[in-house]
Amino acid sequence: MDSPDDLGLDLPDLRPGWVWLTGAGPGDPALLTLQALHGLRQADVVVYDALVDRRVLALARPGAALEYAGKRGGRPSPKQPDISRRLVQLARDEQRVLRLKGGDPFVFGRGGEEALALVAAGVPFRIVPGISAGIGGLAYAGIPVTHRDGNSAVTFVTGHNTAGDVPDGLDWPAIARGSPVIVLYMALKHLDGIADRLLAGGRPAHEPVAVVASAATAGQRVLVTTLGACAMDATAQGIAPPAMVVIGDVVTLRGGLDWLGALAGRRLDPDPLRLRDRSEAG
Amino acid sequence: MDSPDDLGLDLPDLRPGWVWLTGAGPGDPALLTLQALHGLRQADVVVYDALVDRRVLALARPGAALEYAGKRGGRPSPKQPDISRRLVQLARDEQRVLRLKGGDPFVFGRGGEEALALVAAGVPFRIVPGISAGIGGLAYAGIPVTHRDGNSAVTFVTGHNTAGDVPDGLDWPAIARGSPVIVLYMALKHLDGIADRLLAGGRPAHEPVAVVASAATAGQRVLVTTLGACAMDATAQGIAPPAMVVIGDVVTLRGGLDWLGALAGRRLDPDPLRLRDRSEAG
Repeated sequence: MDSPDDLGLDLPDLRPGWVWLTGAGPGDPALLTLQALHGLRQADVVVYDALVDRRVLALARPGAALEYAGKRGGRPSPKQPDISRRLVQLARDEQRVLRLKGGDPFVFGRGGEEALALVAAGVPFRIVPGISAGIGGLAYAGIPVTHRDGNSAVTFVTGHNTAGDVPDGLDWPAIARGSPVIVLYMALKHLDGIADRLLAGGRPAHEPVAVVASAATAGQRVLVTTLGACAMDATAQGIAPPAMVVIGDVVTLRGGLDWLGALAGRRLDPDPLRLRDRSEAG
Repeated sequence: MDSPDDLGLDLPDLRPGWVWLTGAGPGDPALLTLQALHGLRQADVVVYDALVDRRVLALARPGAALEYAGKRGGRPSPKQPDISRRLVQLARDEQRVLRLKGGDPFVFGRGGEEALALVAAGVPFRIVPGISAGIGGLAYAGIPVTHRDGNSAVTFVTGHNTAGDVPDGLDWPAIARGSPVIVLYMALKHLDGIADRLLAGGRPAHEPVAVVASAATAGQRVLVTTLGACAMDATAQGIAPPAMVVIGDVVTLRGGLDWLGALAGRRLDPDPLRLRDRSEAG
């Protein structure tokens, strides 16, 4: 395989004094974008958060400084202004700064906040989108967030607000009714409370749920359960963060679309919705 | 920049008789994943749809056959079974097949359907996620789909069902109330009807809306308008598909986050929500 540069792509360079707010994708380094890799190979400093896979960090230019700016999901994040200040300081020191976030910087990643701090300080920046775990991570579990005629909408919700609580500014009954598929980010801590709200909003207890932990990494774990049992099952199975949760009939498609399982010998079912359709008809 | 292979990534190879269902991202070839580029450089046949940027296709292995399988948004798609049959046939002919779709194959892309056809035919496959236009394309317009304390949820909706109509199986009043930010895919054709449903569901007519056409391509156009006026304005401005529509206060952040505009000399506002906050206080 040729280098992207040899292909005439003419990727922009990460210049001294600039910050690239960059998504690292859900885990698998193969899901990095060409632009993100280009930035990793040029950066003087990589400021990375807790969800960035170490195989991705290993791609940084030899000699690049790797700075951990991690925060733990579910807890308050007093350090956010410190992170923004640090990015500004590094840029003012004429460093080439790659700010590397798990998934996509604009999907529950506070990328907008950091970018506005750079604007206020007059630091030039670029946004480099990444593959969000709620789409690409679930694809590694064989679960599509949309399926023909199954759902015309999908809702992404964060499992906790900036204070670490269930985001109760949301109209949970409307969320429950509005979207056939709901994807929860960082939801393990409050899964019981969120499941209760969705059940109270009319979602059935037997609705399929998948909990996908460490998606698209070597340690990926997939728990298939139901809305009524998911919180208990996740605890019983010892599922640990980071985890995505997906609620809806698309979970059933995993029986046919678990391509990663098939690589390991699993036999796939070409008609995974068959049983569901029968039970609805009956 | 080194080639990904030189970096020891050990990317899986696209083998004869296999199909990779691959996302091409929203447009900019820099947003291709390493895995997608690797597949492009190995494929015997690339079966691509209408939304794949020609700069992406230019990265295919010299000598690879490029087959157009495009469908037009908003119209019925009688050809879908033909596309699936073609993929199966190519795989049985021991071709290395890259099925390349705009954005991500599992986000309103019918990737699940094609994969199940492969399973039924016993054809081995891999899913290669891509950057969805509803996230990465909007980022190229300086619009984050989530912002701290602004929205804990975002809903993606397709602007038409497989029959080409407004998807009326949805609970539009619940969609309107459930999510502070709504992103519409392929929504230009029915934008008036969808805006009417959201207004009827209680969204204010003055709510900010952006229509982003040909996102992350050289021809990107961004129209900032309101929910009440968006359909008329899009027509008046001659906005043509493909286009994403985003509804919600995050649109206002474009004043501070339009990094692509800043590269062309636009002055960014570090506090783009200031006026909105004042008007709410007043």
